[in-house]
Amino acid sequence: MKTKDRIEQALMSAVARTDAPGTPPKLARAIHHAVFPGGARVRPQLCLAVAAACGDDAPTVSDASAVAIELLHCASLVHDDLPCFDDAETRRGRPSVHAAFGEATALLTGDALIIMAFETLARASAAQPLRLGPLTVAVGRAVGAPGGLVAGQGWELEDQVILEDYHRAKTGALFTAATVTGAISAGADPAPWRGLGEKLGEAYQVADDIRDVAADPDEIGKPVLQDAQWLRPNAVAELGMEGALSRLQRLLQDAVDSIPSCKGAPGLRELVLLQAKRLVPKELRESAA
Amino acid sequence: MKTKDRIEQALMSAVARTDAPGTPPKLARAIHHAVFPGGARVRPQLCLAVAAACGDDAPTVSDASAVAIELLHCASLVHDDLPCFDDAETRRGRPSVHAAFGEATALLTGDALIIMAFETLARASAAQPLRLGPLTVAVGRAVGAPGGLVAGQGWELEDQVILEDYHRAKTGALFTAATVTGAISAGADPAPWRGLGEKLGEAYQVADDIRDVAADPDEIGKPVLQDAQWLRPNAVAELGMEGALSRLQRLLQDAVDSIPSCKGAPGLRELVLLQAKRLVPKELRESAA
Repeated sequence: MKTKDRIEQALMSAVARTDAPGTPPKLARAIHHAVFPGGARVRPQLCLAVAAACGDDAPTVSDASAVAIELLHCASLVHDDLPCFDDAETRRGRPSVHAAFGEATALLTGDALIIMAFETLARASAAQPLRLGPLTVAVGRAVGAPGGLVAGQGWELEDQVILEDYHRAKTGALFTAATVTGAISAGADPAPWRGLGEKLGEAYQVADDIRDVAADPDEIGKPVLQDAQWLRPNAVAELGMEGALSRLQRLLQDAVDSIPSCKGAPGLRELVLLQAKRLVPKELRESAA
Repeated sequence: MKTKDRIEQALMSAVARTDAPGTPPKLARAIHHAVFPGGARVRPQLCLAVAAACGDDAPTVSDASAVAIELLHCASLVHDDLPCFDDAETRRGRPSVHAAFGEATALLTGDALIIMAFETLARASAAQPLRLGPLTVAVGRAVGAPGGLVAGQGWELEDQVILEDYHRAKTGALFTAATVTGAISAGADPAPWRGLGEKLGEAYQVADDIRDVAADPDEIGKPVLQDAQWLRPNAVAELGMEGALSRLQRLLQDAVDSIPSCKGAPGLRELVLLQAKRLVPKELRESAA
């Protein structure tokens, strides 16, 4: 099965558990809306690619890690889009969850997805129970406080922010968790895989900043110029467009260079370079090459 | 150490992990505000009482279960108080989290507490790794969809609701998780402990409905008549005050009767009866006796 299909199928199994009589119908629809159709599924692909490079001896566990990472990403988008944060009416070219289902349902949808992420890990780990603790800690660290996604979102509400700390928490931590949990899922030492996630996470955030300034909103399916509107830190504002583009290139090269030598290294390098292409808006690709 | 002190200390250790340089200061303060000072800590007390009745051979694990249950309860209060739900400005006699720190920070606080709950379980289970899976699944089931807290909150947003299903999810599930995780934490079979949690959860919800109609807001530290204002199901509205009080008494008796015979049974019965007294507003205690 192709990795993309494997991810969609694993996500569908996880979400299907909430499609049961006890779930309020509106909440069930909103959860589905938040997860399908997805974006590029970059994080779960990265997770499974690392698991594959490490032998992937327990695909049920690596599936669960990929799902957990993606569900937490989706949860953060749902809560980030709410009126008290970005107040974004669209996401992936469709109404955001609160625009379609109301604020209260969107709030619960994010909560349900966070819970589902941890529950999915636990259910999948029955055959490899010793991997569950390290997986849960890695995922928790990536999304909680002090260093994870929620902390990163919290920095948007402070007056004094260090750009790198903010990006590392808001975007980098979940990328790092993708590579780290990929390795743990396959019973491998996660330490050599940290760097890849960190560099890709930084690159992704810089690319997001570039798109926020320079992309066509129809191409990326969400509003642009949000950072300026919400007075959020932005790499282009800090380094200029040329500076941001050259930083992006350096980070992607660092990411490729950090891949430990192993059987799966060539495939991983290819994946990184493929993703890299998608990171930059069409009209800037030449100057970024 | 007294159980109450043990709970506060375990909660403080868990929360202290977020009091680190990476956590935005406002978020750190809001997390603290959401957890301290607490209410009666009924759920973690119940969890530890069941663990004690089962031998409590791994207090680090039972502490973590008690903490996880209470953090999830606190998270649900923070999100429930938000303007898109109850819009409650006070909680436990103080400003609610969003009243004190703003909506965006309150949103993140709830998210952080949910994540912290699962992370706490995982960190504590290093010495008893085989208990982590069942604990996480039990906790996830209690707070997620289809049958948990989030599903219960979701039913408040639907037009057609079955009162018992709604209560079971919104309040009962976390009580059930308290007794179930108490048993699992001590390596015991959780099945005989389910009934106690279920009955206490139902009782607690009926008592909450009674207080919402009949309590002095100063005594309970939050606004009253919220169910009528938000058109939520309420046992008094459905059964009348006398009907609701007699249902409460029957549920508490059922709870006491469900306690499996074991060394800790007398202590547990005492705890249940003690809590029962606190459940009914002063001026109604006589008619409820």
